[in-house]
Amino acid sequence: MTDITMIRASAARLAGHARRTPLLSSLFLDEIAGRRVFVKPECLQHTGSFKYRGARSAISALDPDTRAHGVIAFSSGNHAQGVALAANEFGVPSVIIMPSDAPRTKIDNTRALGAEVVLYDRATEDRDAIGARLSGERGLTLIKPYDEPQVIAGQGTVGLEIAEAAAALGIGTADVLVCCGGGGLTSGIALALEADAPGLRARPCEPEGFDDATRSLASGRIERNTRLSGSLCDAIVTPQPGNITFPIMQRLCGPGLVVTEDECLHAMALAFSRLRIVAEPGGAVALAAALFRRDQIEGDAVFATISGGNVDADVFREALHRFA
Amino acid sequence: MTDITMIRASAARLAGHARRTPLLSSLFLDEIAGRRVFVKPECLQHTGSFKYRGARSAISALDPDTRAHGVIAFSSGNHAQGVALAANEFGVPSVIIMPSDAPRTKIDNTRALGAEVVLYDRATEDRDAIGARLSGERGLTLIKPYDEPQVIAGQGTVGLEIAEAAAALGIGTADVLVCCGGGGLTSGIALALEADAPGLRARPCEPEGFDDATRSLASGRIERNTRLSGSLCDAIVTPQPGNITFPIMQRLCGPGLVVTEDECLHAMALAFSRLRIVAEPGGAVALAAALFRRDQIEGDAVFATISGGNVDADVFREALHRFA
Repeated sequence: MTDITMIRASAARLAGHARRTPLLSSLFLDEIAGRRVFVKPECLQHTGSFKYRGARSAISALDPDTRAHGVIAFSSGNHAQGVALAANEFGVPSVIIMPSDAPRTKIDNTRALGAEVVLYDRATEDRDAIGARLSGERGLTLIKPYDEPQVIAGQGTVGLEIAEAAAALGIGTADVLVCCGGGGLTSGIALALEADAPGLRARPCEPEGFDDATRSLASGRIERNTRLSGSLCDAIVTPQPGNITFPIMQRLCGPGLVVTEDECLHAMALAFSRLRIVAEPGGAVALAAALFRRDQIEGDAVFATISGGNVDADVFREALHRFA
Repeated sequence: MTDITMIRASAARLAGHARRTPLLSSLFLDEIAGRRVFVKPECLQHTGSFKYRGARSAISALDPDTRAHGVIAFSSGNHAQGVALAANEFGVPSVIIMPSDAPRTKIDNTRALGAEVVLYDRATEDRDAIGARLSGERGLTLIKPYDEPQVIAGQGTVGLEIAEAAAALGIGTADVLVCCGGGGLTSGIALALEADAPGLRARPCEPEGFDDATRSLASGRIERNTRLSGSLCDAIVTPQPGNITFPIMQRLCGPGLVVTEDECLHAMALAFSRLRIVAEPGGAVALAAALFRRDQIEGDAVFATISGGNVDADVFREALHRFA
């Protein structure tokens, strides 16, 4: 199971490969939030999201003989690109299973990173069966998106960097707001903070209508989302928290925070004008919470992750049109 | 006069204040450029441009008694915000002289950073007379935008960071493309590279029609732009290279590179989709040159600065609409 030793080992394997993202801030954002806001922009990570860390952590942890056969993942989004790039760097094959109606650019980008993309028809085909057949035939190792100890360890390296930055800033107590889907990033950061910055507390942030982690933390058991599609924040929507990630979040995290899609678009526009970075809607939920849920946050400083920046130009233009 | 000792002293004064910006890259940009492209995104610097470095360098170099009276600058753009923030951090007054028809957001942003903004009518008033009167009355020190040794030294710290990154990457020979207005950033980087990475060569990059530095380097004497307004790349347009910066560029720089405004917009769209950063048109000229002037560049790697990211939302939306 993931612990701080595993996270530190992951950090050592990622050194020189994952980017150490900077910490950004703006007096203008501080004013809106009513406290100092420090942003950890994982949109600047390779492939444009934190997912590269977990993917490279998991693939680098495989024994070389196993790894040589290649890896497989189910994803049409950020996890796909993270796995594709990490496998490519190790010179091993990667197979990404995507629905045939996935956006063309995501398919093309994943292929361009060296993956073999296998498309399936959501209506008539069973993706798990396709994956099982390919894995069996080729000896591929499945890289799960979040409920996997080495993936959580990789995402936890974000937490190590936040803890180090907080110490340099002299901040001993603060909420650390994390964009939360299955909970890999949230639980990994929470474990890292427990060890290296015990006064900092991770809190999952989610879009309205897809607040499974927030409700699960409140009720004390895993709750599901009623809908699984239709969110502008699709990059971070999953059916429910993971079986491995949830107990970690339950033990370590503060209450979840929920924001609206419009607040995400507004946060994207402010990240554009005040930080000059590109956030995707799901990647902006934690910043939106930092800016627009000030009464639910404690302390005179807050950290907010930007989990990714892979957003269609049309959606970004809409955010600027409405809120910039 | 600026030399490497002055640049290193400036770096020591900026430590813990200026952001050490990361180095970004993307396999997709490498493919377009036909070589590895490493981007130094100064749009992520405080106030959204490299200008903060030079402003803080100059203000921190003043003796405390002089500094306490305050500083003054003429600018409606990135230099204004850099001076305002740096003065604010030292707790000293800053006066920024701007034309009364400057964009409202630039006036508001500069005020919000703590500056006193004095507006003048371009048609009927003499800004130099206004500046001289205020400086005389209050003992303000003028912070020039580029033709000032301590400003050049501050901008040169970008070059120190590029030299260090190149060494870590094992790159001994490469062109370093720099967005060039008056030449403060270009000459500062050139001096830093001369000392710390002599195989790296700075080259000024400019928009078509405003290519005074390129023409000056070609002719061997300072050439002026025929027009001074009407460029989408207004952030980096100046009448001519500086009297201090030009001899440095002449001694150390390779030939200039010139790109079109459309190529800048295209580079902005690629920086959005591939690096998830926001570049202003003038800030994208060096990246545009790296991507679209491959035959004029030498070596299998190239560095490109992004000088700033303070762009109106409408212009950014246009870039995405046309090129993303």
